[in-house]
Amino acid sequence: MDSVRELISPPPFLLQPPQAKIVACLRRQGPLSRTDIADITGYSRSTITTLVNELTDAGILEEMGDGESSGGRRPRVVSFRSDFGYIVAVDMGATGFDLAVADFNAVLLERVSMPIDVRDGAAPILGMLHRLTLEILERQAISPEKIYAFGIGVPGPVDFAAGILNAPPIMPGWDAYPIRAFFRSTFPNAIVIVDNDVNMMAQGELAAGAGRKHENFLFVKIGTGIGCGIVARGEIYRGSTGSAGDVGHICADRNGPMCHCGNVGCLEAIAAGPAIAHRASEAALAGRSAILKKYYEQCGGQMTAVEVGRAAAEGDKVANEIVRDSGYIIGEVLAGQVNFFNPSLILIGGGVSNIGLMFLSSIRSGILTHSLPLSTRHLRIDTSAIAQDAGLIGAAALALTNVFSEER
Amino acid sequence: MDSVRELISPPPFLLQPPQAKIVACLRRQGPLSRTDIADITGYSRSTITTLVNELTDAGILEEMGDGESSGGRRPRVVSFRSDFGYIVAVDMGATGFDLAVADFNAVLLERVSMPIDVRDGAAPILGMLHRLTLEILERQAISPEKIYAFGIGVPGPVDFAAGILNAPPIMPGWDAYPIRAFFRSTFPNAIVIVDNDVNMMAQGELAAGAGRKHENFLFVKIGTGIGCGIVARGEIYRGSTGSAGDVGHICADRNGPMCHCGNVGCLEAIAAGPAIAHRASEAALAGRSAILKKYYEQCGGQMTAVEVGRAAAEGDKVANEIVRDSGYIIGEVLAGQVNFFNPSLILIGGGVSNIGLMFLSSIRSGILTHSLPLSTRHLRIDTSAIAQDAGLIGAAALALTNVFSEER
Repeated sequence: MDSVRELISPPPFLLQPPQAKIVACLRRQGPLSRTDIADITGYSRSTITTLVNELTDAGILEEMGDGESSGGRRPRVVSFRSDFGYIVAVDMGATGFDLAVADFNAVLLERVSMPIDVRDGAAPILGMLHRLTLEILERQAISPEKIYAFGIGVPGPVDFAAGILNAPPIMPGWDAYPIRAFFRSTFPNAIVIVDNDVNMMAQGELAAGAGRKHENFLFVKIGTGIGCGIVARGEIYRGSTGSAGDVGHICADRNGPMCHCGNVGCLEAIAAGPAIAHRASEAALAGRSAILKKYYEQCGGQMTAVEVGRAAAEGDKVANEIVRDSGYIIGEVLAGQVNFFNPSLILIGGGVSNIGLMFLSSIRSGILTHSLPLSTRHLRIDTSAIAQDAGLIGAAALALTNVFSEER
Repeated sequence: MDSVRELISPPPFLLQPPQAKIVACLRRQGPLSRTDIADITGYSRSTITTLVNELTDAGILEEMGDGESSGGRRPRVVSFRSDFGYIVAVDMGATGFDLAVADFNAVLLERVSMPIDVRDGAAPILGMLHRLTLEILERQAISPEKIYAFGIGVPGPVDFAAGILNAPPIMPGWDAYPIRAFFRSTFPNAIVIVDNDVNMMAQGELAAGAGRKHENFLFVKIGTGIGCGIVARGEIYRGSTGSAGDVGHICADRNGPMCHCGNVGCLEAIAAGPAIAHRASEAALAGRSAILKKYYEQCGGQMTAVEVGRAAAEGDKVANEIVRDSGYIIGEVLAGQVNFFNPSLILIGGGVSNIGLMFLSSIRSGILTHSLPLSTRHLRIDTSAIAQDAGLIGAAALALTNVFSEER
């Protein structure tokens, strides 16, 4: 096979199917001995030796340290050569982004956070990403040519194949903006992977969180909106046009309030952050809770779900009622997805997920009451343990997965 | 590779990964030239020649006829050798089953239908299947040793890996019954694949129906219950414990009637066949429709959805209202799955799907009103064109897919 030469082609590096299988295997499992790779891929030991040698000659893999012994001599393990190249991971929210540069084993070398208003539009914010990336690369003495991928999570619907946003409601000015082209001149060797923020978070849980041991799970982000990343058979599921997981606009109450999407009673309009804050503000103004009134005044009438959580923690009855109702109705809607999708794990994340233990237990209760025992017998429902970092870890993992692609 | 000898091992025939890839490719695409196989699998032309020769020597593949020419000499195409072995496909419903014997290219050689009451239990009904299979094999001069797989669709929840039913509500006496062991003595070489009936129907649409061109679609069966087969990335998705697709018990109306499952307002309790018949019977008894009254008396008070469909076709206003309401509420619930799963196709099948055009158009209207434009822009919603045969075709296709398995 003339694969070494092919590997020097620009990214995504094309690999022959057997080479791609080994790379994917190491990406998923971490460093492995040749024997383990043979066991997992089904190829013979001699084929593995040939393939690993090719990939080592190409500078992609290296032998390192010693693996765990199963009795005899400790086997040498194979991993990615960490300085083969580098990637940039970005987790963008409505009001700020996290940015990190990572090596080829997904180790974060340096990270920064920056407050933004995503409504300022694509060019200024991408410009800021660009500048910060170059600053990190200079400090780390890495040439921009060695950046082989960007993984960028954004808070809006994405056309994954095209790498553009698709009419994002909270990101006017980003619609169809050519993010890939923006980075091309400075980073000629980088592929640019753009995905929805919840998909990136689900990817992060899959790579390094509670999702590692689950084939089929949901990551539900509750914040200004409510969205859901879906992992099916160990991979992100994006649906036919990339809009899968939009649970925020499932009708939760036919007699509910009007949603900004034009429909009535959407889950988001009843139980996301702004709805929780709105109910609490009403209670404060109506004099139904002294504690909520205190917070309402403290924040100058700009109440958020965070204040409601604080009031609930102080034992305020009305705040706790709001938290409980919101969690329960989210659970009711998720019960439908449990019946339909039969996941083994639901992870709750996002800014509103921290407004008290009552919130999680009400979500649980809504799910368990409204789904079939057959679907919930082995279902775990929990908050995300890596919530703050899930998006960044996922962006890094997804970018790395896409640096190599299988020749067809 | 010593693969020819390995192929003579009992089924599922173990194939090395590259051989398995060729078999899967021919299974999905039908007969192909060597060049086409090379293009699709990514292997070199010479590797393909070696692999195809091995599989031909083992009697699994054969060269046949001529492929379509793209200008020059017509290429020879490779297909399964139809007499390498045979499979038995079964589509079982609550009141009858279809049974067929097919060759290795999924051509049905002979089929029979038989009325049953599935509540009679596993042993007598499997005994009937057994006897009818042997009769067909005798007429077709096929030895039972040449049966390499059974594919059996059943109307209940299935533990797919174990091949048993899992507490099926309408099939008492089938719970955990060892279906595989039942066939082992007479058919020593047959693997037995058991799956839920809607999964088999979705599989049939994927193999030979409208689903062939869709990666992500739903097959919704509306009959005594309401269930849904899910195809994700070109494969049946069963969920973590095999219960995925249970849309019949999603809550459609919090103030709705009690369901037999113990919850309130399940879709099935409002809009499946019995609910439709119940509403029509009430209207007939209350004197609100002369036409429904006529049908009510004709069937001795044992109204079904079929009579409601007939009354609707005769222009009865009340019957049409019932059909419309039921379709619309099914659409409302499916809208949630459209937001969540973002399929490109929804196929409607099952006995109740034929109760009038109004039914399909109301389902469509319920879906389109309650889901986001981004999810429905490219969504097709239609009745299944192969509805009567989808289950049998799917059982044959799934059985054939499982005869060969990849060595690990």
